[in-house]
Amino acid sequence: MREPQRVRAAGLPERVTIYEVGPRDGLQNEAAVIPVEVKAEFVARLAAAGHRVIEATSFVHPKWVPQLADAAELLAVMERVPGVRYPVLVPNERGLDRALEHGVEEIAIFASATETFAGRNLNRTLESQFEMFEPVVARALAHGLRVRAYVSMCFGDPWEGPTPVAQVVSVGRRLLDLGCFELSLGDTIGVGTPGHVSALIEAFGGPSRLAVHFHDTYGQALANTLTALREGVTVVDASTGGIGGCPYAESATGNLATEDLVWMLHGLGVETGLDLPSLVETSTWLAARLGRPSPSRVVQALGENPSRTTAENAEE
Amino acid sequence: MREPQRVRAAGLPERVTIYEVGPRDGLQNEAAVIPVEVKAEFVARLAAAGHRVIEATSFVHPKWVPQLADAAELLAVMERVPGVRYPVLVPNERGLDRALEHGVEEIAIFASATETFAGRNLNRTLESQFEMFEPVVARALAHGLRVRAYVSMCFGDPWEGPTPVAQVVSVGRRLLDLGCFELSLGDTIGVGTPGHVSALIEAFGGPSRLAVHFHDTYGQALANTLTALREGVTVVDASTGGIGGCPYAESATGNLATEDLVWMLHGLGVETGLDLPSLVETSTWLAARLGRPSPSRVVQALGENPSRTTAENAEE
Repeated sequence: MREPQRVRAAGLPERVTIYEVGPRDGLQNEAAVIPVEVKAEFVARLAAAGHRVIEATSFVHPKWVPQLADAAELLAVMERVPGVRYPVLVPNERGLDRALEHGVEEIAIFASATETFAGRNLNRTLESQFEMFEPVVARALAHGLRVRAYVSMCFGDPWEGPTPVAQVVSVGRRLLDLGCFELSLGDTIGVGTPGHVSALIEAFGGPSRLAVHFHDTYGQALANTLTALREGVTVVDASTGGIGGCPYAESATGNLATEDLVWMLHGLGVETGLDLPSLVETSTWLAARLGRPSPSRVVQALGENPSRTTAENAEE
Repeated sequence: MREPQRVRAAGLPERVTIYEVGPRDGLQNEAAVIPVEVKAEFVARLAAAGHRVIEATSFVHPKWVPQLADAAELLAVMERVPGVRYPVLVPNERGLDRALEHGVEEIAIFASATETFAGRNLNRTLESQFEMFEPVVARALAHGLRVRAYVSMCFGDPWEGPTPVAQVVSVGRRLLDLGCFELSLGDTIGVGTPGHVSALIEAFGGPSRLAVHFHDTYGQALANTLTALREGVTVVDASTGGIGGCPYAESATGNLATEDLVWMLHGLGVETGLDLPSLVETSTWLAARLGRPSPSRVVQALGENPSRTTAENAEE
């Protein structure tokens, strides 16, 4: 079967927007630098498959993410499809300057829900990270940009264990109060489970302005996404073919794979505007360029070897 | 984090029984024959980790499943823990004879929900498969055995596409009417999605006597399991480390991995009686014997390299 059977379930949104993070979050940990032409083709393929939001790159310092050192070059050569948003990650004011120079219309900032990760990833405290965000968001809004905010480590972090829900809500509310139009709640290490997802969304007072960003490190990403949809969330981050996350373990996945999410959504009769065969084809194309198979189950089932029939997989 | 944080969700069972299929369904497609001592240790480790139902082997003809040709030998050497059930798959009357000879107290039979798979796997029609099951179940019950029934291809098959829900219910009801105590509804090729799961359970009139058996071929197994739990199902089939299913693709998984399921259930505060670190240790031990890593995300995150810290996985 190349497409799921459609059987509606009660209590789910009619339509979901997939916020595609493959070109940025998916590629950022790749050791071998990918040519800018390949990145531009990747972004073009995603738009052609129906994506309407594609996070294209990041203006983080090249010392920290060498893979995305070509951000300006990519934005210069990248084809833009009318109606498609191409947000860019911006860590600080210097990044914002560069985004403004290159005509970016939407940015994303990256906050931490825990003290330790704020220190390690941002070199700030939980409190002082806002001193970095405030001028970025204020200036971006003054220039007419839209600003999205990621909150990382919303479910736990490797040093502190589980993250208190109230702490996530406190960080998230401050970002919304700065003027961010959307919060992406990140389970950066993939430890969350469905009850925790519901508790967090309910602690925010409901799904308004919330998106979810699950990593599949413990295999929970799709079950958690289903739970978020039942709570009313309609924006879900995902990465082409499940790339990103854990570069040290070939078989480990990072982000929720877009194709696995689309299989579920289309099976549930939820509209995405996406063409699944095109997504699978792009992941197969990208896997060849990255030199290893996609961690997406759907891509493994449908994409890697077109001559293989699923009939070979018929034993119980 | 070695264990999930516990956050209850409404509308879920207090306790779930995991029906462990690793020694039978998990191993049956392994090409290299595993020594019977390793199988016996595997079963003993599963019981020690808290499993109370372990499908130990199959009396299928060795021509079809050479890996399980040692079924009688395994039953002879296998340690049995009081209170633990060790069902054995029995395809026909000859298999039942052997099960009775070896003191088996619970058997499982294996039916098809589709015409084509009945022909290919059982050499019967959808209708005539019951002529094979009737004497097996009747004789087993007369000897005081409990009989479980698998129904395969409940969501779709590779030849016919989606399986009509009414057809699954018809096959399943006939098996229950024969005297089977439990039906395991199998998504043999892993194509189902949550709305389909709900529709099928509701078509049976609710979860009574139903178990679910999901394969993760399209990444849907855990989301589908969560849905079945919300429908009231309390028995879930799973396989140690996710072994089984697709022997031709190293990275593809077959069965839902027990560890990924346990991570979700314990996170949800649902009791399983299982010790997660012991399960991970057993999967790591087994992976070394099978010569390749476990496809379970939890085992990959926690089990393969004890010196690796999750802090290395801290980037968003």
